[in-house]
Amino acid sequence: MAKRYEIRLAGSGGQGLILAGIILAEAAGLYDGKFVCQTQSYGPAARGGASKAEVVISDEEIDYPKAIQPDVLLAMNQKSLDTYLSDLKPDGLLLVDATFVTEIPATGAVAIPFTRIARELGKEMAANIVALGALATLSGAVTLKSLRTAVLARVPPGTAELNKKALAAGIAAARKYLKKSATNKIF
Amino acid sequence: MAKRYEIRLAGSGGQGLILAGIILAEAAGLYDGKFVCQTQSYGPAARGGASKAEVVISDEEIDYPKAIQPDVLLAMNQKSLDTYLSDLKPDGLLLVDATFVTEIPATGAVAIPFTRIARELGKEMAANIVALGALATLSGAVTLKSLRTAVLARVPPGTAELNKKALAAGIAAARKYLKKSATNKIF
Repeated sequence: MAKRYEIRLAGSGGQGLILAGIILAEAAGLYDGKFVCQTQSYGPAARGGASKAEVVISDEEIDYPKAIQPDVLLAMNQKSLDTYLSDLKPDGLLLVDATFVTEIPATGAVAIPFTRIARELGKEMAANIVALGALATLSGAVTLKSLRTAVLARVPPGTAELNKKALAAGIAAARKYLKKSATNKIF
Repeated sequence: MAKRYEIRLAGSGGQGLILAGIILAEAAGLYDGKFVCQTQSYGPAARGGASKAEVVISDEEIDYPKAIQPDVLLAMNQKSLDTYLSDLKPDGLLLVDATFVTEIPATGAVAIPFTRIARELGKEMAANIVALGALATLSGAVTLKSLRTAVLARVPPGTAELNKKALAAGIAAARKYLKKSATNKIF
Protein backbone atom coordinates (compact mmCIF):
# COMPACT_ATOMS: atom_id res chain seq x y z
CA MET A 1 0.00 0.00 0.00
CA ALA A 2 1.15 3.54 -0.74
CA LYS A 3 2.23 5.79 2.12
CA ARG A 4 -1.12 7.59 2.25
CA TYR A 5 -4.39 5.83 1.47
CA GLU A 6 -7.69 7.71 1.48
CA ILE A 7 -11.16 6.21 1.81
CA ARG A 8 -14.46 8.06 1.57
CA LEU A 9 -17.74 6.48 2.71
CA ALA A 10 -20.85 8.33 1.50
CA GLY A 11 -24.58 7.78 1.60
CA SER A 12 -27.63 8.94 3.49
CA GLY A 13 -27.97 9.48 7.23
CA GLY A 14 -29.05 6.23 8.87
CA GLN A 15 -26.92 4.01 6.62
CA GLY A 16 -24.36 3.71 9.41
CA LEU A 17 -21.41 5.28 7.61
CA ILE A 18 -20.05 7.11 10.63
CA LEU A 19 -19.88 3.85 12.56
CA ALA A 20 -18.35 2.22 9.46
CA GLY A 21 -15.67 4.93 9.36
CA ILE A 22 -14.82 4.41 13.01
CA ILE A 23 -14.62 0.64 12.61
CA LEU A 24 -12.33 1.02 9.59
CA ALA A 25 -10.15 3.53 11.44
CA GLU A 26 -9.89 1.30 14.50
CA ALA A 27 -9.06 -1.73 12.36
CA ALA A 28 -6.19 0.18 10.76
CA GLY A 29 -5.04 2.19 13.77
CA LEU A 30 -5.56 -0.03 16.80
CA TYR A 31 -5.12 -3.46 15.22
CA ASP A 32 -3.03 -3.02 12.04
CA GLY A 33 -0.76 -0.48 13.76
CA LYS A 34 -1.02 2.27 11.13
CA PHE A 35 -1.43 6.01 11.57
CA VAL A 36 -5.06 6.89 10.93
CA CYS A 37 -7.25 9.97 10.87
CA GLN A 38 -11.01 9.58 10.75
CA THR A 39 -13.15 12.59 10.00
CA GLN A 40 -16.77 13.37 9.54
CA SER A 41 -18.13 16.69 8.49
CA TYR A 42 -21.53 18.18 9.00
CA GLY A 43 -22.94 21.32 7.52
CA PRO A 44 -26.01 22.50 5.69
CA ALA A 45 -25.70 19.42 3.42
CA ALA A 46 -26.04 17.07 6.38
CA ARG A 47 -29.45 18.53 7.15
CA GLY A 48 -30.54 17.22 3.78
CA GLY A 49 -29.83 13.72 5.09
CA ALA A 50 -26.43 13.17 3.49
CA SER A 51 -23.69 11.45 5.49
CA LYS A 52 -20.00 11.24 4.77
CA ALA A 53 -17.08 9.76 6.69
CA GLU A 54 -13.44 9.71 5.68
CA VAL A 55 -10.53 7.57 6.77
CA VAL A 56 -6.92 8.35 5.93
CA ILE A 57 -4.44 5.54 6.61
CA SER A 58 -0.70 6.02 6.50
CA ASP A 59 2.58 4.42 7.48
CA GLU A 60 3.70 7.85 8.67
CA GLU A 61 2.18 10.58 10.82
CA ILE A 62 -0.67 12.33 9.01
CA ASP A 63 -0.43 16.07 8.37
CA TYR A 64 -3.75 16.70 6.67
CA PRO A 65 -6.58 14.49 7.97
CA LYS A 66 -9.14 14.88 5.19
CA ALA A 67 -9.28 12.98 1.91
CA ILE A 68 -7.85 15.03 -0.97
CA GLN A 69 -8.25 12.52 -3.80
CA PRO A 70 -9.72 9.31 -2.42
CA ASP A 71 -8.27 5.93 -3.39
CA VAL A 72 -11.64 4.37 -2.55
CA LEU A 73 -15.18 5.73 -2.79
CA LEU A 74 -17.98 3.71 -1.23
CA ALA A 75 -21.27 5.20 -2.49
CA MET A 76 -24.31 3.79 -0.72
CA ASN A 77 -26.80 5.70 -2.89
CA GLN A 78 -27.03 7.43 -6.27
CA LYS A 79 -26.77 10.96 -4.91
CA SER A 80 -23.52 10.34 -3.07
CA LEU A 81 -22.06 8.68 -6.17
CA ASP A 82 -23.03 11.67 -8.32
CA THR A 83 -21.64 14.11 -5.75
CA TYR A 84 -18.28 12.50 -5.08
CA LEU A 85 -17.32 10.54 -8.22
CA SER A 86 -15.26 13.38 -9.68
CA ASP A 87 -12.97 13.44 -6.62
CA LEU A 88 -11.97 9.78 -6.95
CA LYS A 89 -8.41 9.01 -8.04
CA PRO A 90 -8.43 7.99 -11.75
CA ASP A 91 -7.43 4.39 -10.97
CA GLY A 92 -9.32 4.42 -7.66
CA LEU A 93 -11.77 1.77 -6.45
CA LEU A 94 -15.44 2.70 -6.87
CA LEU A 95 -17.71 0.51 -4.79
CA VAL A 96 -21.48 1.06 -4.93
CA ASP A 97 -24.54 -0.38 -3.24
CA ALA A 98 -26.38 -1.86 -6.22
CA THR A 99 -29.59 -1.83 -4.16
CA PHE A 100 -29.85 1.95 -4.60
CA VAL A 101 -27.32 2.92 -7.29
CA THR A 102 -28.80 2.36 -10.73
CA GLU A 103 -26.64 4.57 -12.97
CA ILE A 104 -23.07 3.29 -13.01
CA PRO A 105 -20.52 5.64 -14.59
CA ALA A 106 -18.92 4.71 -17.92
CA THR A 107 -15.60 4.12 -16.16
CA GLY A 108 -17.17 1.23 -14.25
CA ALA A 109 -17.74 0.28 -10.64
CA VAL A 110 -17.90 -2.74 -8.39
CA ALA A 111 -21.65 -2.98 -7.79
CA ILE A 112 -22.78 -5.23 -4.94
CA PRO A 113 -26.26 -5.04 -3.36
CA PHE A 114 -25.09 -4.47 0.22
CA THR A 115 -28.49 -3.50 1.55
CA ARG A 116 -30.28 -6.39 -0.14
CA ILE A 117 -27.71 -8.82 1.27
CA ALA A 118 -28.19 -7.34 4.76
CA ARG A 119 -31.97 -7.53 4.41
CA GLU A 120 -31.68 -11.23 3.53
CA LEU A 121 -29.65 -11.72 6.72
CA GLY A 122 -32.60 -10.19 8.59
CA LYS A 123 -31.25 -6.70 9.36
CA GLU A 124 -31.06 -3.99 6.71
CA MET A 125 -29.02 -1.79 9.07
CA ALA A 126 -26.08 -4.20 8.76
CA ALA A 127 -25.51 -3.07 5.15
CA ASN A 128 -22.59 -0.93 6.38
CA ILE A 129 -20.84 -4.03 7.76
CA VAL A 130 -21.47 -6.00 4.54
CA ALA A 131 -19.93 -3.07 2.64
CA LEU A 132 -16.89 -2.97 4.96
CA GLY A 133 -16.23 -6.67 4.30
CA ALA A 134 -16.25 -6.06 0.55
CA LEU A 135 -14.22 -2.85 0.79
CA ALA A 136 -11.46 -4.48 2.84
CA THR A 137 -11.33 -7.52 0.53
CA LEU A 138 -11.10 -5.44 -2.65
CA SER A 139 -8.81 -2.66 -1.41
CA GLY A 140 -6.56 -4.39 1.11
CA ALA A 141 -6.74 -1.18 3.15
CA VAL A 142 -7.08 -3.16 6.37
CA THR A 143 -6.53 -6.84 7.16
CA LEU A 144 -9.67 -8.93 7.46
CA LYS A 145 -8.57 -10.11 10.89
CA SER A 146 -8.28 -6.55 12.21
CA LEU A 147 -11.56 -5.60 10.58
CA ARG A 148 -13.33 -8.48 12.29
CA THR A 149 -11.86 -7.49 15.68
CA ALA A 150 -12.86 -3.86 15.16
CA VAL A 151 -16.42 -4.77 14.10
CA LEU A 152 -16.95 -6.93 17.18
CA ALA A 153 -15.56 -4.22 19.47
CA ARG A 154 -17.93 -1.54 18.17
CA VAL A 155 -21.31 -3.08 17.29
CA PRO A 156 -24.06 -3.02 19.95
CA PRO A 157 -24.12 -5.92 22.42
CA GLY A 158 -26.27 -8.82 21.23
CA THR A 159 -25.59 -8.18 17.55
CA ALA A 160 -22.20 -9.94 17.29
CA GLU A 161 -23.50 -13.03 15.46
CA LEU A 162 -25.48 -11.03 12.93
CA ASN A 163 -22.54 -8.74 12.27
CA LYS A 164 -20.14 -11.65 11.83
CA LYS A 165 -22.52 -13.00 9.17
CA ALA A 166 -22.79 -9.57 7.54
CA LEU A 167 -19.01 -9.24 7.37
CA ALA A 168 -18.62 -12.75 5.94
CA ALA A 169 -21.32 -12.03 3.34
CA GLY A 170 -19.51 -8.88 2.20
CA ILE A 171 -16.19 -10.72 1.95
CA ALA A 172 -17.84 -13.54 -0.02
CA ALA A 173 -19.54 -11.13 -2.44
CA ALA A 174 -16.23 -9.37 -3.10
CA ARG A 175 -14.39 -12.66 -3.63
CA LYS A 176 -17.08 -13.76 -6.06
CA TYR A 177 -16.57 -10.50 -7.96
CA LEU A 178 -12.78 -10.97 -8.00
CA LYS A 179 -13.14 -14.52 -9.29
CA LYS A 180 -15.57 -13.44 -11.99
CA SER A 181 -13.38 -10.56 -13.15
CA ALA A 182 -10.34 -12.87 -13.23
CA THR A 183 -12.32 -15.28 -15.42
CA ASN A 184 -13.36 -12.43 -17.70
CA LYS A 185 -9.75 -11.43 -18.17
CA ILE A 186 -8.65 -14.97 -19.03
CA PHE A 187 -11.34 -15.72 -21.61
CA MET B 1 -19.28 32.18 20.03
CA ALA B 2 -16.25 33.00 17.88
CA LYS B 3 -16.23 31.85 14.28
CA ARG B 4 -14.14 28.78 15.02
CA TYR B 5 -14.44 26.87 18.29
CA GLU B 6 -12.24 23.87 19.03
CA ILE B 7 -12.90 21.10 21.55
CA ARG B 8 -10.56 18.26 22.46
CA LEU B 9 -11.75 15.22 24.41
CA ALA B 10 -8.96 13.07 25.82
CA GLY B 11 -8.68 10.08 28.08
CA SER B 12 -8.11 6.36 27.91
CA GLY B 13 -9.61 3.90 25.47
CA GLY B 14 -12.91 2.62 26.84
CA GLN B 15 -13.94 5.97 28.34
CA GLY B 16 -16.24 6.54 25.37
CA LEU B 17 -14.62 9.68 24.03
CA ILE B 18 -15.07 8.79 20.37
CA LEU B 19 -18.80 8.39 20.90
CA ALA B 20 -18.76 11.64 22.91
CA GLY B 21 -17.09 13.42 20.00
CA ILE B 22 -19.68 12.15 17.55
CA ILE B 23 -22.56 13.16 19.81
CA LEU B 24 -21.10 16.64 20.25
CA ALA B 25 -20.53 16.97 16.49
CA GLU B 26 -24.05 15.84 15.69
CA ALA B 27 -25.53 18.20 18.28
CA ALA B 28 -23.72 21.13 16.64
CA GLY B 29 -23.97 20.03 13.01
CA LEU B 30 -27.29 18.26 12.66
CA TYR B 31 -29.33 20.07 15.32
CA ASP B 32 -27.68 23.48 15.91
CA GLY B 33 -27.03 23.96 12.18
CA LYS B 34 -23.31 24.75 12.42
CA PHE B 35 -20.45 23.57 10.27
CA VAL B 36 -18.60 20.83 12.15
CA CYS B 37 -15.61 18.58 11.65
CA GLN B 38 -15.07 15.69 13.98
CA THR B 39 -11.75 13.88 13.93
CA GLN B 40 -10.09 11.06 15.76
CA SER B 41 -6.54 10.01 15.27
CA TYR B 42 -4.90 6.70 15.98
CA GLY B 43 -1.25 5.90 15.91
CA PRO B 44 1.36 4.22 18.05
CA ALA B 45 0.03 6.22 21.04
CA ALA B 46 -3.42 4.64 20.67
CA ARG B 47 -1.91 1.23 21.26
CA GLY B 48 -0.92 2.45 24.70
CA GLY B 49 -4.62 2.89 25.43
CA ALA B 50 -4.92 6.64 24.90
CA SER B 51 -7.97 8.00 23.13
CA LYS B 52 -8.55 11.46 21.67
CA ALA B 53 -11.42 12.99 19.73
CA GLU B 54 -11.68 16.52 18.41
CA VAL B 55 -14.63 18.61 17.35
CA VAL B 56 -14.30 21.90 15.47
CA ILE B 57 -17.47 23.99 15.28
CA SER B 58 -17.83 27.00 13.04
CA ASP B 59 -20.35 29.37 11.52
CA GLU B 60 -18.45 29.04 8.26
CA GLU B 61 -17.10 26.16 6.21
CA ILE B 62 -14.08 24.58 7.92
CA ASP B 63 -10.75 24.53 6.09
CA TYR B 64 -8.61 22.70 8.60
CA PRO B 65 -10.49 20.05 10.56
CA LYS B 66 -8.12 19.46 13.46
CA ALA B 67 -7.85 21.48 16.66
CA ILE B 68 -4.94 23.91 16.53
CA GLN B 69 -5.34 25.59 19.93
CA PRO B 70 -8.39 24.14 21.69
CA ASP B 71 -10.92 26.41 23.39
CA VAL B 72 -11.91 23.47 25.56
CA LEU B 73 -9.94 20.51 26.86
CA LEU B 74 -11.82 17.69 28.56
CA ALA B 75 -9.24 15.49 30.29
CA MET B 76 -10.68 12.25 31.63
CA ASN B 77 -7.43 11.14 33.28
CA GLN B 78 -4.14 12.55 34.53
CA LYS B 79 -2.07 11.44 31.56
CA SER B 80 -4.28 13.15 29.00
CA LEU B 81 -4.24 16.35 31.07
CA ASP B 82 -0.45 16.29 31.27
CA THR B 83 -0.14 15.56 27.53
CA TYR B 84 -2.53 18.19 26.19
CA LEU B 85 -2.62 21.03 28.72
CA SER B 86 0.04 23.05 26.92
CA ASP B 87 -2.06 23.20 23.74
CA LEU B 88 -5.06 24.78 25.46
CA LYS B 89 -5.85 28.42 24.63
CA PRO B 90 -4.66 30.65 27.52
CA ASP B 91 -8.22 31.60 28.50
CA GLY B 92 -9.61 28.20 27.45
CA LEU B 93 -11.88 25.95 29.52
CA LEU B 94 -10.12 23.08 31.26
CA LEU B 95 -12.55 20.42 32.43
CA VAL B 96 -11.23 17.37 34.26
CA ASP B 97 -12.66 14.16 35.68
CA ALA B 98 -11.85 14.58 39.36
CA THR B 99 -12.26 10.80 39.80
CA PHE B 100 -8.91 10.24 38.10
CA VAL B 101 -7.19 13.62 37.86
CA THR B 102 -5.46 14.44 41.12
CA GLU B 103 -2.93 17.09 40.11
CA ILE B 104 -4.70 20.22 38.92
CA PRO B 105 -2.46 22.81 37.20
CA ALA B 106 -1.77 26.11 38.93
CA THR B 107 -3.89 27.92 36.36
CA GLY B 108 -6.95 26.05 37.63
CA ALA B 109 -9.57 23.71 36.21
CA VAL B 110 -13.20 22.81 36.59
CA ALA B 111 -12.92 19.47 38.38
CA ILE B 112 -16.05 17.31 38.49
CA PRO B 113 -16.00 13.59 39.31
CA PHE B 114 -17.75 12.43 36.09
CA THR B 115 -16.95 8.77 36.57
CA ARG B 116 -18.02 8.73 40.22
CA ILE B 117 -21.30 10.42 39.29
CA ALA B 118 -21.88 7.84 36.55
CA ARG B 119 -21.04 4.99 38.94
CA GLU B 120 -23.62 6.32 41.40
CA LEU B 121 -26.19 6.26 38.58
CA GLY B 122 -25.33 2.59 38.15
CA LYS B 123 -23.20 2.67 35.00
CA GLU B 124 -19.61 3.86 35.03
CA MET B 125 -19.54 3.85 31.21
CA ALA B 126 -21.96 6.80 31.15
CA ALA B 127 -19.19 9.10 32.45
CA ASN B 128 -18.74 10.43 28.91
CA ILE B 129 -22.38 11.59 28.84
CA VAL B 130 -22.10 13.20 32.29
CA ALA B 131 -19.03 15.03 31.00
CA LEU B 132 -20.84 16.20 27.85
CA GLY B 133 -23.63 17.69 29.95
CA ALA B 134 -21.11 19.69 31.96
CA LEU B 135 -19.05 20.67 28.92
CA ALA B 136 -22.08 22.04 27.06
CA THR B 137 -23.32 23.91 30.14
CA LEU B 138 -19.97 25.55 30.83
CA SER B 139 -18.86 26.28 27.26
CA GLY B 140 -22.11 26.98 25.43
CA ALA B 141 -20.56 25.15 22.45
CA VAL B 142 -23.86 23.40 21.73
CA THR B 143 -27.37 23.99 23.00
CA LEU B 144 -28.57 21.61 25.70
CA LYS B 145 -31.63 20.78 23.60
CA SER B 146 -29.51 19.69 20.63
CA LEU B 147 -27.15 17.78 22.90
CA ARG B 148 -30.06 15.85 24.41
CA THR B 149 -31.41 14.99 20.95
CA ALA B 150 -27.96 13.88 19.79
CA VAL B 151 -27.38 11.74 22.89
CA LEU B 152 -30.69 9.93 22.48
CA ALA B 153 -30.03 9.34 18.76
CA ARG B 154 -26.63 7.70 19.35
CA VAL B 155 -26.70 5.70 22.60
CA PRO B 156 -27.52 1.97 22.41
CA PRO B 157 -31.20 1.02 22.52
CA GLY B 158 -32.44 0.39 26.04
CA THR B 159 -30.07 2.92 27.63
CA ALA B 160 -32.06 6.09 26.94
CA GLU B 161 -33.31 6.55 30.52
CA LEU B 162 -29.89 6.05 32.04
CA ASN B 163 -28.28 8.45 29.58
CA LYS B 164 -30.93 11.12 30.20
CA LYS B 165 -30.08 10.89 33.90
CA ALA B 166 -26.35 11.02 33.14
CA LEU B 167 -26.79 14.14 31.01
CA ALA B 168 -28.94 15.81 33.66
CA ALA B 169 -26.38 14.97 36.35
CA GLY B 170 -23.59 16.57 34.29
CA ILE B 171 -25.65 19.71 33.69
CA ALA B 172 -26.53 19.93 37.41
CA ALA B 173 -22.89 19.52 38.48
CA ALA B 174 -21.80 22.29 36.10
CA ARG B 175 -24.58 24.61 37.27
CA LYS B 176 -23.56 23.98 40.87
CA TYR B 177 -20.01 24.92 39.93
CA LEU B 178 -21.17 28.10 38.16
CA LYS B 179 -23.28 29.12 41.14
CA LYS B 180 -20.41 28.51 43.53
CA SER B 181 -17.92 30.47 41.46
CA ALA B 182 -20.41 33.36 41.11
CA THR B 183 -20.77 33.40 44.89
CA ASN B 184 -17.00 33.43 45.29
CA LYS B 185 -16.73 36.41 43.01
CA ILE B 186 -19.42 38.41 44.81
CA PHE B 187 -18.18 37.91 48.35
